[in-house]
Amino acid sequence: MEKDFKGLANQYKKALLDDVIPFWEQHSIDWEKGGYFTCLDRAGKVYDTDKFIWLQNRQVWLFSMLYNQLKNQPEQRDHWLKVAANGANFLAKHGRDADGNWYFALDRTGNPLVQPYNIFSDCFAAMAFSKYALASNEDWAKEVALQAYNNVLRRKDNPKGTYNKTFPGTRPLKSLAVPMILANLSLEMAWLLPSDQLEEVLAVTVQEVMTDFLDGDRGLMYENVAPDGTHVDSFEGRLINPGHGIEAMWFVMDIAKRRNDTNTINQAVDVVLNSLNFAWDKEYSGLYYFMDAEGHPTQQLEWDQKLWWVHLEALVALAMSYRLTGREACWEWYQKLHTYTWSHFADPQYGEWFGYLDRRGEVLLNLKGGKWKGCFHVPRALYLCWQQFEALS
Amino acid sequence: MEKDFKGLANQYKKALLDDVIPFWEQHSIDWEKGGYFTCLDRAGKVYDTDKFIWLQNRQVWLFSMLYNQLKNQPEQRDHWLKVAANGANFLAKHGRDADGNWYFALDRTGNPLVQPYNIFSDCFAAMAFSKYALASNEDWAKEVALQAYNNVLRRKDNPKGTYNKTFPGTRPLKSLAVPMILANLSLEMAWLLPSDQLEEVLAVTVQEVMTDFLDGDRGLMYENVAPDGTHVDSFEGRLINPGHGIEAMWFVMDIAKRRNDTNTINQAVDVVLNSLNFAWDKEYSGLYYFMDAEGHPTQQLEWDQKLWWVHLEALVALAMSYRLTGREACWEWYQKLHTYTWSHFADPQYGEWFGYLDRRGEVLLNLKGGKWKGCFHVPRALYLCWQQFEALS
Repeated sequence: MEKDFKGLANQYKKALLDDVIPFWEQHSIDWEKGGYFTCLDRAGKVYDTDKFIWLQNRQVWLFSMLYNQLKNQPEQRDHWLKVAANGANFLAKHGRDADGNWYFALDRTGNPLVQPYNIFSDCFAAMAFSKYALASNEDWAKEVALQAYNNVLRRKDNPKGTYNKTFPGTRPLKSLAVPMILANLSLEMAWLLPSDQLEEVLAVTVQEVMTDFLDGDRGLMYENVAPDGTHVDSFEGRLINPGHGIEAMWFVMDIAKRRNDTNTINQAVDVVLNSLNFAWDKEYSGLYYFMDAEGHPTQQLEWDQKLWWVHLEALVALAMSYRLTGREACWEWYQKLHTYTWSHFADPQYGEWFGYLDRRGEVLLNLKGGKWKGCFHVPRALYLCWQQFEALS
Repeated sequence: MEKDFKGLANQYKKALLDDVIPFWEQHSIDWEKGGYFTCLDRAGKVYDTDKFIWLQNRQVWLFSMLYNQLKNQPEQRDHWLKVAANGANFLAKHGRDADGNWYFALDRTGNPLVQPYNIFSDCFAAMAFSKYALASNEDWAKEVALQAYNNVLRRKDNPKGTYNKTFPGTRPLKSLAVPMILANLSLEMAWLLPSDQLEEVLAVTVQEVMTDFLDGDRGLMYENVAPDGTHVDSFEGRLINPGHGIEAMWFVMDIAKRRNDTNTINQAVDVVLNSLNFAWDKEYSGLYYFMDAEGHPTQQLEWDQKLWWVHLEALVALAMSYRLTGREACWEWYQKLHTYTWSHFADPQYGEWFGYLDRRGEVLLNLKGGKWKGCFHVPRALYLCWQQFEALS
């Protein structure tokens, strides 16, 4: 593969604007009841109409983000704001319980199906309404974003609230997801937060991720650790989620770059490379979904599957790593990942990307969207890779 | 395959008594702290010491059941009662919270890890202590069994209690697991219950399973239906769990046989055969784990995997179907299942059976036990198949 960064930028831009965004515009918008359909088969046909709050908010975020980022550029479309509004209005009306907590799922018309059992629905709501407020200039959307953000801050030390099944005290664990999402979310809210509050949250979360969750000897991110950052010999404590660790590292690079903190950038790049070495399937290629740090069997039956978001987050992390450091190892890995990912996940015949492949890279679920895959990781990664290669060219 | 029922009976008996039971006796007993290790690698080595209440109770049940069933026969071993007692004493001391509800998991020494978040821990406790009371003649064990049974009756209409995430009212669903386990459990408790209470529970649960959960047109068991037995077009409402449906059918046959209800027996056999036709993987053989009734993608990423318990429950159901009806279709299917199951799951090299294979029948998790696989489905099925073929020979 040649270092044709202009060509790569164009490949990502074209896939985003001519394939993926039109796919969701054409098949997923529920103009009648509001919000989006995310359960789409290979061709885009709706096979289930339930509305999952993570995915609804992520689609509002995606269309708003794109509208904001491409402002005053020929690629921007007014239609994107209408698509975002169709979700934001539906969510503002139906998405929260009486206390302002965000449900997990609604039926097509907006009746609640699943209670607000953790804070991630609120995280994605804060991200979505922050970007939508910026796009639409609507003050009410700003209020919704700040309310959701405050929910997250209030509930972050007990993200599942009364739904937490862990017996208190026996084996306390903390999860990488919490500081990671807090860092990413706070960046998304940057324009709405006092800058000292923002800088403080960013400093604390990056510090926590790079000390407590990073195992210095192995150079790998652990998914769960004791409150003091030590390892706990249990299924949860041994769990490595390579895609999650790699995604966390580009969040960290993004933050470190704001401060020109090249040490942290280099450390994050090291973790990306270590994670790829650890999680690459040497027999069938691709990255495993879950692994046990000690090589024991995982709890997760889906451990050896190849998931779209893992590979897309790795492409983002590698493109960013290479742009920020120029290290050849990043370019080597990028090429390997690029070849595997584009040839296995993209679906030139019907558009958009497959989500779930088996270990051998064959399609496991013949869909473009479902309960957990919506309009988010594919277009976000395509946009970010486009930007990295644009900057390199 | 010849109809050598004596030979089949011997094959199952030998596997049970010379391979599987010794495997668990040798590797799983925690004589030091009490209870059992269930996380065993291929060779039987312990890789995790947490104690999951379902599996702890199921192992107490299995050793007690075997001790009771083989009473006064040359195969019975006194050691089995010691093994059962090692679990029962540990569980009686550590298994319950202050209100008498059974936890989901403990650490090795018995400290609670996971709260009593549904009634299935209590179900397996009732089964275990009922059979252990019978084996040991201990009155206190009878009390533990009855207390757990009453927990189940009290909580059966809201099995998850405050941990239930479903928003009330929007889309009420009931689950096959509840009547199924109630029928099976009540049979297990038969010697402790007034006979009119027992017969009433059995009649009600069989009726509910064979009308509300059985789809008459397709002849398949649905995993979740509306309270009135109608279908609900959603992920949960379209779910078919073939192994669970087949297991339910041999529970039903077992109960119907007590009453010489040949109509219900024949109806259950039909469902077994329909389920096998529906769930058989025509490309790679074996039975799928989860399916969508309408052919849509499932929520479950593990849908195409081949699981030990699904195949073992199918062997039991087919052996019982054939014994009770003599229908040739049952024998045809039995042979097909037998060939696949014995050649893929049994591990003559290290003993016991693999639990989790991928779609192609290759080992997915190199273990003999874990968080969900313990000393239960393999030996129970071996025992029951032994008995069916013994009766046929």
